[in-house]
Amino acid sequence: MNSKDHSGPSTNDSASVYSQKFSVEFDYDVHFTRSTFDEANEMFLDVLDRRGEGRRHRILVCVDSGVLETHPDLPRKIKDYCHAHQEKVELVGTETVPGGEEAKVDWKIVEDLMIALGNNHMDRQSYVVAIGGGSVLDMVGFVAALVHRGLRLIRFPTTVLAQNDAGVGVKNGMNEHGQKNFMGTFAPPFAVINDFDFLPTLNQDHWLGGVSEAFKVAIIKDKKFFDFLCGSAHAIAQREQGPMEELIRRCAILHLQHIAGNGDPFEMGTARPLDFGHWSAHKLELLSNYEIGHGAAVAAGIALDSYYAKKKNLISADELKRILDGISNCGLKVWYPEMAQRNDSGELAILQGLKEFQEHLGGRLTITLPEGIGKKVEVHHMDYDLIEEGLFYLRDYAQQRSTDNGDVKAG
Amino acid sequence: MNSKDHSGPSTNDSASVYSQKFSVEFDYDVHFTRSTFDEANEMFLDVLDRRGEGRRHRILVCVDSGVLETHPDLPRKIKDYCHAHQEKVELVGTETVPGGEEAKVDWKIVEDLMIALGNNHMDRQSYVVAIGGGSVLDMVGFVAALVHRGLRLIRFPTTVLAQNDAGVGVKNGMNEHGQKNFMGTFAPPFAVINDFDFLPTLNQDHWLGGVSEAFKVAIIKDKKFFDFLCGSAHAIAQREQGPMEELIRRCAILHLQHIAGNGDPFEMGTARPLDFGHWSAHKLELLSNYEIGHGAAVAAGIALDSYYAKKKNLISADELKRILDGISNCGLKVWYPEMAQRNDSGELAILQGLKEFQEHLGGRLTITLPEGIGKKVEVHHMDYDLIEEGLFYLRDYAQQRSTDNGDVKAG
Repeated sequence: MNSKDHSGPSTNDSASVYSQKFSVEFDYDVHFTRSTFDEANEMFLDVLDRRGEGRRHRILVCVDSGVLETHPDLPRKIKDYCHAHQEKVELVGTETVPGGEEAKVDWKIVEDLMIALGNNHMDRQSYVVAIGGGSVLDMVGFVAALVHRGLRLIRFPTTVLAQNDAGVGVKNGMNEHGQKNFMGTFAPPFAVINDFDFLPTLNQDHWLGGVSEAFKVAIIKDKKFFDFLCGSAHAIAQREQGPMEELIRRCAILHLQHIAGNGDPFEMGTARPLDFGHWSAHKLELLSNYEIGHGAAVAAGIALDSYYAKKKNLISADELKRILDGISNCGLKVWYPEMAQRNDSGELAILQGLKEFQEHLGGRLTITLPEGIGKKVEVHHMDYDLIEEGLFYLRDYAQQRSTDNGDVKAG
Repeated sequence: MNSKDHSGPSTNDSASVYSQKFSVEFDYDVHFTRSTFDEANEMFLDVLDRRGEGRRHRILVCVDSGVLETHPDLPRKIKDYCHAHQEKVELVGTETVPGGEEAKVDWKIVEDLMIALGNNHMDRQSYVVAIGGGSVLDMVGFVAALVHRGLRLIRFPTTVLAQNDAGVGVKNGMNEHGQKNFMGTFAPPFAVINDFDFLPTLNQDHWLGGVSEAFKVAIIKDKKFFDFLCGSAHAIAQREQGPMEELIRRCAILHLQHIAGNGDPFEMGTARPLDFGHWSAHKLELLSNYEIGHGAAVAAGIALDSYYAKKKNLISADELKRILDGISNCGLKVWYPEMAQRNDSGELAILQGLKEFQEHLGGRLTITLPEGIGKKVEVHHMDYDLIEEGLFYLRDYAQQRSTDNGDVKAG
C-alpha cells in the first residue's frame, strides 16, 4: 500500500492511497474458411472447445433476417450439424433478429434477446452465436456483453464490411441520442468465423461496403495493399470471388494488428481507431437516415479527406486521382447530395460531424490523414473552407465520371 | 499469421486462422480520506489530472437521494469547491438518483442519465462522479460504462459496504429478469474516494451492512483480521469510528488484492469472486423483495455456510461459535424467516439460489467454504439436507441469543 498524504492540515492525518493495477489478457482466433456447417467439418466444434473444457457446449444462435432471405436453409443446416455432433454441442435455440441499422436503434429487440438468453439459462460459459452483418453483430454483441456481465460471443460476419473490419474487432454498439454507437462496450469476441460462402449471395451494397474500409486501411497503412486494390478494382466490381477473399483477409489482419499493436486496444488513452474518413461518414449516414450504409459513406468520407490531404500537400495530385479512381472503379460513389445539406443557419450539416466525432472519442479533435500512400499523420484542426471546396470537387468529379461513362443523368 | 487447416477435404484448401492476442492495462487509485470538498484540499483535483492532461476537467455529479437527506449541503459544497478551482474543473451538472436497490431495477433512470450525459456532451475523457451506496454506484457505473463505450468514473462510496467491497471493485450491474446483476459489465473506475466523513450519518443498516463482507473476507483469507473483527465487534455495534475505518481499509485492500492477484480480474475463466456466503444471500435479498439488504443477507449467508463447513469438518465447533458470535455481537442477524420459505412444491425456496449462482458465473457449481479460519476451499456439490439442518440451527441460535439478551419476543 502506497501511503501518500494528499491533503491539508490536521483533519486528514490518516489519508492514504492504495494503487490498484492489473492487466487482463484477451485472445481470440479469426478463421477464414468455408462450409462451416458441413457435417464433416469439425472446426466449429474445435472453436467451442478451444479452452479444452471437454463439456457439451451450449449455443444460442441469432441470425440476421437479411441472411435468412438468401440462406433460408441455414437454421436447418445448423440444427442438423448440432444434431450430428450432439455429444459436443447443444443447440439451445435460434433467434431471428432484424438486419441493418434497424437492429441498433430498437431497445425492444435488446430486451427480447436479453429475455431469451435468460429464459434459456445461458451462463458465462455458454455461447451466443451471431450470424449477420455489422449491425446485427453490434446489437447481439451488445446484449451478450451485458448479460451476466458477458457471455461468450462467436461472430459469423456475413458482409464484406463485417468480415474485414467491424466483425473482427473488439466493439459493439447501439445507436442512441441521435448518434451512432452512442452506447456500447469494448468486448472482444470468443472467436470470429469469416465463412466466405456468405459472399456470393450478398447484394451489391453489402458486397461493396467493406471495400471502402480496405481502401481506408491501405491508404494510411499499406501501399502494396493499395496497389492490389487499385489493380483489382474492376474484378471486384465484376464480383470475382478470389480478389475479394484476398481483400478481406488482408484488411481484417491489418485491423487486428492495429488493435493489438497500438498499446491501447480499448482506447482509454490517446489510441485512435482506424478511422480515416470516418468523421464525415458517420454524419452522412445519419443525414441520410441510414439510407446510405456505413461502407458507402466511408467511401465518400475517404474521398473528402483525401482531397483535403492533397490541398495540404500531404499527398500528390496523382495519388488523389488514384484514390478516387480506385474507389470509383470498384463501383463505390465518392459523392452524395446529402453531403451538401445545410442546416437552418446555412452551415453545412456535415461539419457538425467533426464535433460529434471529437466528443465520441474524447479529448482534442484528432483527424487521421494520409501522408503519401501507406503512411498516416494526425491533425487537430480542420479548415472548414477546404472541406467545403472538397465537397464541390467531389460533386464535379462524380458528374464528370458519370458523363464519361455515358450515364444518363436524371433531373 | 498462423495457418492451420481445420477442415475436411477439398472444399476448404484456403482455410486459415489468425490468432489475436493482447492485454489491457487497468489502474486506479483508492483513496481513504476525509474532507474531500474542503476548498483547501487539492486531492480531488490531483485525481482528475492523474494522467497529467492539464486541461480543465469536466465533471457531472450523480448523488444518491439517500445521501442528500443526511448531507443536504453536499451539492452546494461541491459547487463551491468547483467554483474555487474553476481553472481546473468545470461542474457540468448535478443529478439526483434514487438510492437503494430501486436504482437498479428502473430502466427509466438509466435512460434519463444516458440522456443527461449526452445533452451535457460528456466525452470519454469527461468524468462521471457517483456519490452513494452500492446500488447507486452500480447503476451510475453501468450507464457511464456504456455511453461512448465508457466515460471516466470516479466513485465516492458512502456506505460501509460500498467503501470496503462493492465500490472498490471492477463491476457494475442492474437487476433484471428477476436476478441480481443479471445485466452489467466489468469496468474498472478511474478512481475511488472513500471519504470517511460519510460514515457518522449512516443509518444502522448502512453502518452494519459492510461488516458482513469484512467477516466474509477475513474468514476465508485473513485470520488476524478475523481476530480483529471479533475483538472490535462491540465497539462496532456502539458505532465507534476508529475500528470501523480500520475495518474498511483492511477489507477494501483484501478485495483489491484478490482482484489483482487472481490472474483473471474479469472472471472469464475459472477465477471466482470473493463470494463466500453469497449464493444464499443473493436469493434471500430477492425473497424479501430487497427488504433485507445485501450486507444483512450476507451475514446470514456466511452463518449458513459456516454451519455447513462445520458439519463437513472444515472448521471446528469453536470456530463456528466465534463466527456466529462475532457477527451477532456487531449487531447483525444470522437468521431471517424468509430463509425457511418454501415454494409450491414444498422445496426450500433458498435452494434455488444455488442454481442461479451457478448460472451467473457459468461452468460447474463452485462454492467457497472456510478451511479453518483464514483459508478457503472450493466444493462443487452442496448437500441439501445439511443446508436445511443449518437453517434450523441458525433459527435456534438466533432464538437462544434473543432469550439470553432478555429480548421480548413477539408472537
